[in-house]
Amino acid sequence: MKGNVLVGQSGGPTAVINASLAGVFKTAKERGYNKVYGMRYGIQGFMDEQYVDLSEHIKNELDLELLKRTPSAFLGTCRYKLPEIHEDKAIYERIFELLDKLDIEVFIYIGGNDSMDTIRKLFDYSLLTGAKQKFVGCPKTIDNDLAITDHTPGFGSAAKYIATSTKEIICDAMGFSYKKKNVNIVEIMGRNAGWLTGAAALSRSEDCEGPDLIYLPELPFSIEGFVDEVKKLLEKKDVVVAVVSEGIKTAEGKYVCEYATENASTDAFGHIQMSGTAAYLAQVVKNELGCKTRAVELSTLQRAAAHLASKIDVDEAFNVGGATVKAADEGSSGVMVVIDRVSDDPYQSATGVYDVHRIANGEKVVPRKWINKEGNYVTEEFLDYVRPLIQGHYQPMMVEGLPRHLSINLKNYDWSAPRGKK
Amino acid sequence: MKGNVLVGQSGGPTAVINASLAGVFKTAKERGYNKVYGMRYGIQGFMDEQYVDLSEHIKNELDLELLKRTPSAFLGTCRYKLPEIHEDKAIYERIFELLDKLDIEVFIYIGGNDSMDTIRKLFDYSLLTGAKQKFVGCPKTIDNDLAITDHTPGFGSAAKYIATSTKEIICDAMGFSYKKKNVNIVEIMGRNAGWLTGAAALSRSEDCEGPDLIYLPELPFSIEGFVDEVKKLLEKKDVVVAVVSEGIKTAEGKYVCEYATENASTDAFGHIQMSGTAAYLAQVVKNELGCKTRAVELSTLQRAAAHLASKIDVDEAFNVGGATVKAADEGSSGVMVVIDRVSDDPYQSATGVYDVHRIANGEKVVPRKWINKEGNYVTEEFLDYVRPLIQGHYQPMMVEGLPRHLSINLKNYDWSAPRGKK
Repeated sequence: MKGNVLVGQSGGPTAVINASLAGVFKTAKERGYNKVYGMRYGIQGFMDEQYVDLSEHIKNELDLELLKRTPSAFLGTCRYKLPEIHEDKAIYERIFELLDKLDIEVFIYIGGNDSMDTIRKLFDYSLLTGAKQKFVGCPKTIDNDLAITDHTPGFGSAAKYIATSTKEIICDAMGFSYKKKNVNIVEIMGRNAGWLTGAAALSRSEDCEGPDLIYLPELPFSIEGFVDEVKKLLEKKDVVVAVVSEGIKTAEGKYVCEYATENASTDAFGHIQMSGTAAYLAQVVKNELGCKTRAVELSTLQRAAAHLASKIDVDEAFNVGGATVKAADEGSSGVMVVIDRVSDDPYQSATGVYDVHRIANGEKVVPRKWINKEGNYVTEEFLDYVRPLIQGHYQPMMVEGLPRHLSINLKNYDWSAPRGKK
Repeated sequence: MKGNVLVGQSGGPTAVINASLAGVFKTAKERGYNKVYGMRYGIQGFMDEQYVDLSEHIKNELDLELLKRTPSAFLGTCRYKLPEIHEDKAIYERIFELLDKLDIEVFIYIGGNDSMDTIRKLFDYSLLTGAKQKFVGCPKTIDNDLAITDHTPGFGSAAKYIATSTKEIICDAMGFSYKKKNVNIVEIMGRNAGWLTGAAALSRSEDCEGPDLIYLPELPFSIEGFVDEVKKLLEKKDVVVAVVSEGIKTAEGKYVCEYATENASTDAFGHIQMSGTAAYLAQVVKNELGCKTRAVELSTLQRAAAHLASKIDVDEAFNVGGATVKAADEGSSGVMVVIDRVSDDPYQSATGVYDVHRIANGEKVVPRKWINKEGNYVTEEFLDYVRPLIQGHYQPMMVEGLPRHLSINLKNYDWSAPRGKK
């Protein structure tokens, strides 16, 4: 009898991070592992012995399908950075003691760059001590900024949501253009990588002009230049739509949103908390050009809109989850599963494994050649890369008109509470 | 041979306002009217002789189905208030001259309160002059604030989008709660009526707790009281979700968003332009309670997210559109089509007609008895009223992974422009 599998989720969730969890669970069971434990709130919760036996939550095939359609981190997530081994050996001893106690043979961590850093450190520690566990990373991030893998599960669904919403926003704006010019600024997630922001250009199709301007964080942003571009466009057309990354910075290295807030706070990894870029630019355009402006921040829904998940993305996330268990079962450790693009047309992909040391903390940004000369749009090559990833639709399971999810939090919830019956 | 029909769209669009347009077109053709003209940008564009022959845009049944799935006002919309007849008779003479020139027998205006005001004035003028045209209003508004009609086309789809998005936002927030309390504030459209804000409570179901607090604009809002409620909740739970209307005001009659901006602008009808209520409250909570906060403004997508339209809503919008032509054809004028709820369970509705004088400018708000005693949630009766309206799904027609719409604007668009090939 094989031992147990432990799986955790970390960092910002995606619409399909739970599809990977479903893949881990299914493959672990198929390959004869005993129990599949889930860490509550990643490694941070696990160190406090917060974990569940996933079989108590995924009881049948329907639960598994619901889990694939459930947004956010089913198990809960954390933003917790392990210290270097030499800085605090006690933490590692504690973690490995727990792993042994639970008879864990395989440790899977679903996450982005910071999570792969966790896999790397735990693997390195296992080498030092000769621990039996295998450590495998399962890629996840809407930002698509992980190195080596062709793309990252979560990106395709976010891109589909962004392109669809951009199309609907443009459609809405076009209806209001009579004798009143309007400028619309849409703000998209992506701190340093413009993959999601560029995906807004997918909205350009036979029935939609697409955005007029797209600004990625890869290039310095000129507020003055932006206003000039908008002004030029307004001479030719009534509706202007610009899409900007939350992470655009001026040539001085200052985030545009900082001009608005001047006191942005930082998270545990030292990332600046973004917000208000579009609102700030809308205000500037309104002041400078005097036209009607509108700022739309797509916000949390970019990573949570499971109701619009891409089928390719859900299926790949599920497969990648399964591939992590397979890799560990076949002897790999200290690796991350990657997606290789086998063919562009028809689109085909396959999973592979890659040394996590070469992945951790390396950030993949949009190459300069996939941004136009003027720095205000993406190229056809960029779109050819993204387009296959938004194809197909995972129909939500609708109950009473709304998508049904699988929930871990409400097992003991008191429905008789003041707000009335469920 | 019958004469022609003229149809226009006015005010803020909805996800299903074009389904009503499709209904008008189809019934007009079926009932033997000659041409169906569409005003570009409502009565404002029409006065400048901006109109199209809809047969040139709706060429077959597939176009009609696409139109039903296209958000925003297909024809373009306006916010234009006709003067009283005695104030400017020349405008009326001009409009009726154009109607005669185009041999219009039926004038349909799809809109909300302000649009019904247009129908009323044109009808009154037709009585004064004995003009032959019939004037019929087709209700539309996401706000659901039209009197007499049980509910308004557009509301159900917006409610479905809001409930789904709220569910996804709650799901996302729950994943982040470990050793870090977080407060989430979701801002919903609805200036004076809380129908949409209350609809967020539909997210409360077996798999989701729903929001903790809901504040409608019908009751005065206390910023201090709100912070107290949040504080009390944070003693019992880690994640708090509050949903607020953009139009909540303090007891002094000041919009909460005004505290943030202090210089809100107004539109043509004297409505204050709203924004920033959630962002402001999030800042207050962060300052007072020191916890992590997040503000999400659902923004334009509430009225534009055709990809998540309710089937009941699309079908009713289509039927209501058809019913306007039927009413005019059978001799009615100066009326608005209304929806009567025939049965709650199973839900059934039927169309009727009602004197537009009794509808125009009367605003229907959420009755006090459908808000709980504390003023911070809606009752089960409220939910029983809304729930039938979000049922069923109109599958978008997906092309290359995105919903396809019918577009009037791109007929002569130059796709070879700098942004590259389509």
